[in-house]
Amino acid sequence: MSFPTNPDLVHALRGDAVESVHRGALAIVDADGALRFALGDITRPIFPRSAVKVLQALPLVASGAADAFGLSNDELALACASHGGEPRHAATSASMLAKAGLDAAALECGAHWPSNDTAMKALAREGREPQALHNNCSGKHAGFICVGCLMARAQGAEPRAFVRGYLQPAHPVMREITAALQATTGADLRQAPVGTDGCSIPTYGIPLQNLARAFARIGTGLGLSEGHARAARRLRAAVAASPFFVAGSGRMDTRVMERLGERVFCKVGAEGVYCAALPDPGLGVAIKMDDGNNARAAEVVMAAVIEALAGLDDGEREFLRGFSELRLKNWNGIEVGALRATAGLRTALAAS
Amino acid sequence: MSFPTNPDLVHALRGDAVESVHRGALAIVDADGALRFALGDITRPIFPRSAVKVLQALPLVASGAADAFGLSNDELALACASHGGEPRHAATSASMLAKAGLDAAALECGAHWPSNDTAMKALAREGREPQALHNNCSGKHAGFICVGCLMARAQGAEPRAFVRGYLQPAHPVMREITAALQATTGADLRQAPVGTDGCSIPTYGIPLQNLARAFARIGTGLGLSEGHARAARRLRAAVAASPFFVAGSGRMDTRVMERLGERVFCKVGAEGVYCAALPDPGLGVAIKMDDGNNARAAEVVMAAVIEALAGLDDGEREFLRGFSELRLKNWNGIEVGALRATAGLRTALAAS
Repeated sequence: MSFPTNPDLVHALRGDAVESVHRGALAIVDADGALRFALGDITRPIFPRSAVKVLQALPLVASGAADAFGLSNDELALACASHGGEPRHAATSASMLAKAGLDAAALECGAHWPSNDTAMKALAREGREPQALHNNCSGKHAGFICVGCLMARAQGAEPRAFVRGYLQPAHPVMREITAALQATTGADLRQAPVGTDGCSIPTYGIPLQNLARAFARIGTGLGLSEGHARAARRLRAAVAASPFFVAGSGRMDTRVMERLGERVFCKVGAEGVYCAALPDPGLGVAIKMDDGNNARAAEVVMAAVIEALAGLDDGEREFLRGFSELRLKNWNGIEVGALRATAGLRTALAAS
Repeated sequence: MSFPTNPDLVHALRGDAVESVHRGALAIVDADGALRFALGDITRPIFPRSAVKVLQALPLVASGAADAFGLSNDELALACASHGGEPRHAATSASMLAKAGLDAAALECGAHWPSNDTAMKALAREGREPQALHNNCSGKHAGFICVGCLMARAQGAEPRAFVRGYLQPAHPVMREITAALQATTGADLRQAPVGTDGCSIPTYGIPLQNLARAFARIGTGLGLSEGHARAARRLRAAVAASPFFVAGSGRMDTRVMERLGERVFCKVGAEGVYCAALPDPGLGVAIKMDDGNNARAAEVVMAAVIEALAGLDDGEREFLRGFSELRLKNWNGIEVGALRATAGLRTALAAS
């Protein structure tokens, strides 16, 4: 994983001057797997982190667990989520576990304070500590546990004992999740670099081109098994119906899908990763910002991509422009600068 | 301010793989103003943000205001601080203002929640909202106001009315601050790019080479006016005596100066800036990370510089290694990776 010199994709301006720059790489692939657009190195393996939660949620539907436990749209959206730990997020994780006959004690993701500021301060005000249900990954983990509980039922095993250790690579649940990642991306994960994610599951290094291909498949169903194609349709519909549950109040994924519904499925990940499916043009998108420091730059790039390629009307493009040319204010509410897609990125997208 | 391609200075690792990279530039200048070390573009103007608060605090001492109002070491350190908004920080800002005969209503920096997590949650728990005293810049602003109150006294003006608007470039107080910045850096600020800082004062684009020169001067007194040299000595001694007040609990600036005292003066700024004076070897250091996203990378680079150049013993180098090779753990406390100075940076520093 040596680092190439990728192009400038985002400038942070203060006044009229470029204060900081974010470099990165971007792949856009069509439903036939053909590369339609690339900037920077798209063949180096990158850790996709939480951007691939929808791929990791395919077994939840494909296995029959979502039906067996009667999961709602809110719950299926939460299985694909990096949520803000708002009360409805935590309650929905709990309800998924309850439907499978378990509870929050089964979660192995660890606890952290809600990323949603209001939810975090409310917990503090009540003198409470965060629980695993508040972990941004608790819905994904609850989904894994549902898959495990269905497996246990099929084998006549005690569910709580069966699912224990579900985040280990060799556990039957995690093997199923990894197989879905491999089938959709087409990457050979046995050969891939492997790390441990924030929530303790394995994360595999996968090239942007493969990630984009997986999201083109998620958007169109082409190139997927019948079970995965059906699962992808249902998960996209669930997120479009319940976009609050895939991220939360004020978050880009939620706001974009509230506005555009099933025309976009987008999902941010840690360290500057962002993936999306654009079902209508039949494209998959995968972005990794080199510095990976937080989501500010990846959000700008993803907004510029959606603006250029999702077949939007003027009002919708204007809405996306609020993300791709984000005005920055200081503590006195004075506008001090902006985050902005570079002219190079916009020109390249316009020519694509 | 077009962006050069600066070298890799910091790698973020997950497992054994490089997940993200931080590029940047670094200048080290000696007390004669000679460039001793450079990586990347050190001539492009960059906004130094809060890294130059010690330069902006020189007039507080040089004008006689610190003596006139009987400011303590805690208060002088706070005038150089980006503090965490902990209760002692807020109380010390208030005491500076009270000594000058004013109160928190004179602060024009705006309010934000304490960056210190414990302090922030304590405010939330008490159902309170943050005030201007909690703004990380409140000590700097209280220092500016002290300068203004002494000016008002000399002119027989009403202090509160006199200091109003002190953060405007044309106000007598801000003119004095800007003059100190110009005198110490040797940059022509009339020609410099200008932006508005988070706390609403002007921030001027200054090359890293000039910033490093200013910090070599702060550490040695060479090249400064007699008043500024005396002020620099006093401010460095105050911060060494009260390092909690320049940053706060757990913060790198505080921890490094708690350990090394007057042998280092270091100060972080927003958008990946970090400056330091190393008085013994007589060097000034200035760092700007290209992506500027937060302090994680600049801290690693600064730690590697101090480790290599501050004449430390083995135990002290080991202490700094905790910052320059920072182990990253996830929510379950599992070690998942590291932030690490690149081999290129270490090799270049060792050869310097």
